[in-house]
Amino acid sequence: MGMTMTQKILAAHAGLESVKAGQLIEANLDLVLGNDITSPVAIKEFNKLGVSEVFHKDKVAIVPDHFTPNKDIKAAEQCKFIRTFACEKQITNFFEIGEMGIEHVLIPEKGLVVAGDVVIGADSHTCTYGALGAFSTGIGSTDMGAGMATGKCWFKVPSAIKFVLKNKPAKWVSGKDIILHIIGMIGVDGALYKSMEFVGDGIQHLSMDDRFAAANMAIEAGAKNGIFPVDEKTIEYIKEHSTKEFKVYEADEDAQYDEVYEIDLSTLRPTVAFPHLPDNTRTIDNVGEVKIDQVVIGSCTNGRLEDLRIAASILRGKKVAKYVRTIIFPGTQKVYLQAMEEGLIRDFIEAGAVVSTPTCGPCLGGHMGILAAGERAISTTNRNFVGRMGHVESEVYLSSPAVAAASAITGKITDPELV
Amino acid sequence: MGMTMTQKILAAHAGLESVKAGQLIEANLDLVLGNDITSPVAIKEFNKLGVSEVFHKDKVAIVPDHFTPNKDIKAAEQCKFIRTFACEKQITNFFEIGEMGIEHVLIPEKGLVVAGDVVIGADSHTCTYGALGAFSTGIGSTDMGAGMATGKCWFKVPSAIKFVLKNKPAKWVSGKDIILHIIGMIGVDGALYKSMEFVGDGIQHLSMDDRFAAANMAIEAGAKNGIFPVDEKTIEYIKEHSTKEFKVYEADEDAQYDEVYEIDLSTLRPTVAFPHLPDNTRTIDNVGEVKIDQVVIGSCTNGRLEDLRIAASILRGKKVAKYVRTIIFPGTQKVYLQAMEEGLIRDFIEAGAVVSTPTCGPCLGGHMGILAAGERAISTTNRNFVGRMGHVESEVYLSSPAVAAASAITGKITDPELV
Repeated sequence: MGMTMTQKILAAHAGLESVKAGQLIEANLDLVLGNDITSPVAIKEFNKLGVSEVFHKDKVAIVPDHFTPNKDIKAAEQCKFIRTFACEKQITNFFEIGEMGIEHVLIPEKGLVVAGDVVIGADSHTCTYGALGAFSTGIGSTDMGAGMATGKCWFKVPSAIKFVLKNKPAKWVSGKDIILHIIGMIGVDGALYKSMEFVGDGIQHLSMDDRFAAANMAIEAGAKNGIFPVDEKTIEYIKEHSTKEFKVYEADEDAQYDEVYEIDLSTLRPTVAFPHLPDNTRTIDNVGEVKIDQVVIGSCTNGRLEDLRIAASILRGKKVAKYVRTIIFPGTQKVYLQAMEEGLIRDFIEAGAVVSTPTCGPCLGGHMGILAAGERAISTTNRNFVGRMGHVESEVYLSSPAVAAASAITGKITDPELV
Repeated sequence: MGMTMTQKILAAHAGLESVKAGQLIEANLDLVLGNDITSPVAIKEFNKLGVSEVFHKDKVAIVPDHFTPNKDIKAAEQCKFIRTFACEKQITNFFEIGEMGIEHVLIPEKGLVVAGDVVIGADSHTCTYGALGAFSTGIGSTDMGAGMATGKCWFKVPSAIKFVLKNKPAKWVSGKDIILHIIGMIGVDGALYKSMEFVGDGIQHLSMDDRFAAANMAIEAGAKNGIFPVDEKTIEYIKEHSTKEFKVYEADEDAQYDEVYEIDLSTLRPTVAFPHLPDNTRTIDNVGEVKIDQVVIGSCTNGRLEDLRIAASILRGKKVAKYVRTIIFPGTQKVYLQAMEEGLIRDFIEAGAVVSTPTCGPCLGGHMGILAAGERAISTTNRNFVGRMGHVESEVYLSSPAVAAASAITGKITDPELV
């Protein structure tokens, strides 16, 4: 029986000819990732194992991005703890603020993940790197601790759902809209512990940033991972960012899928997930009148250069609505610099938006843009659970950068075509 | 008996021919200022007075700068409360994030204070505007509430200390070094409830940004206010930023001063205030070996364009030391934009520094750069009290932007001449 793309990567990393769904395997890891919230717990677990060194100094990455620059004393203590560990263990890829960014934007940019890799990260959105044709998944801090020590992790081989993406999406339809559409279609548990394997001729029309945004939210459908085939765009991205060798895996023709969905991208519209779940989606023509208090553009989902270009193209020469806080988070220092060189940061500031240094910030209710009771945000982030961005009586609407930027101008959720 | 510059401004605003030290007067206010921490309390006091409107819609300024972009739910609720008030009372000068900045950088930039004004602000560093030849002082939230209702405030007329600044300071000696030197000399209670009146030929060598930094820290010597004479630079600044009429007051020749100090600026050196008081100063040649974990450049003391220019001139083409977090806070969105146009923001990011949106941030231990136990920061802010920037076992060293930038590169407190 043939294997899916994910299964082939896992088999290769487990040293097996083949694997099948449900099988328990132990796979070699190409990267073990943690952030300022999860790494402290992982380090404590690591320390219990009695090993003196991490399995590979270049294959552990620690990115303090969630509550940094240090939000409070607790955050400062956590960062100090992981910094000390990174220093002691001589971890190459510890990224201090100033050289860092939001982990899932930073790691591909630094070339630390390439096609064919197996990556675990103690952060649920580690699935982002599926955009590069890697198997990449979020795990708990205990697995991160063991992974740092051994370079291995156990997995139950997932079955898969195939999403056949066809045709070219319309102007304002991005990777974010595609994944919101899919989550709306299959539900937040629609791909529970499964691989979401994206294929089809529509993918050629998706930029890498579109693919990162789509893979990033595989977890919002409950998936173990989301994965894109490796095409010319992928290879170009990898060669531009990494010196690592990469390997291209393709699903067997007779691979088994639990389900197959065909999606005509040309029929999609900008899509918004209403409170309080990512699957509570509506197309932009069905949102009605939703006034907003805050706009957030950035995050590991949509904090890349193309996202900022789209947002700036809408905000340029305009002003954000009075009393609407508009906060832009470039994903990394590099994205920030590039956005500055292109004049996008000026566009944002002149429009009356705030530009933050890269941080996860308000996405998870961390800091830099928390909501009061009764307030609503439209946000390019990935979760809109109750209280996700602040008070339990606040609301988060998820959208693309285009919809978020358009909404900033009008003060209500708005079709970018109309501003 | 003659009056000091401060006394003349107060007399004019009290409708009196003359006033003398110790006299209780009620003065008309040209501006009443509050921030996101103090305004909520002031608004509650205002509401108790049973008046429906503020005394003048253009003469109240509310700047949510301390815990914004909202640090947490409490900050969000406070900002919502003041936003609602500003909206209801149609306060012209409510500055939402995105159009704002750190209040004491923003208010002069917006032209809301000019020479001869009387200004109260529910923030101790309201004394900053003395740089413009205004009487400006920090008051409590209750006085702010009453001031918003009546446009008046009572004062006990202060006596004064005269500081005669002579000659031209050396290259790396800034307004910050001058005020640190003075505070070191007279102590943190050296000017308790007095005016610090700066005069002398040395002032012509001080830029407006130097003067803002110096006046800003008058409160750190316990002063009621600090005030500079109005010269060509002041008038140029005012005309560039404001359409308000201004009035130039000068001390009488026979004005009485409690003390007179003569300071030869050419003999000063870059000066650092060691923990845990601003008067615990040492010149840069006497600092010894002090390793640092964090550098903060910005704040209402040193977040102006010239400050950033100086910092960038040192950081340009260099890298901040490994594991040293370097955080730059432009004072306002305008400063940010100007710094970007001049390439300073690029210099900072390329050096490995973090650039934040304008906020008071870590200065008061708010957010965006809090210290863990045992950590040390060198900071261009104004206070280094125990726990000011985080944990009670952390330390803050106060300096000019030049010293802070040089220290970022070496990872220890460093003379800018040596990098």
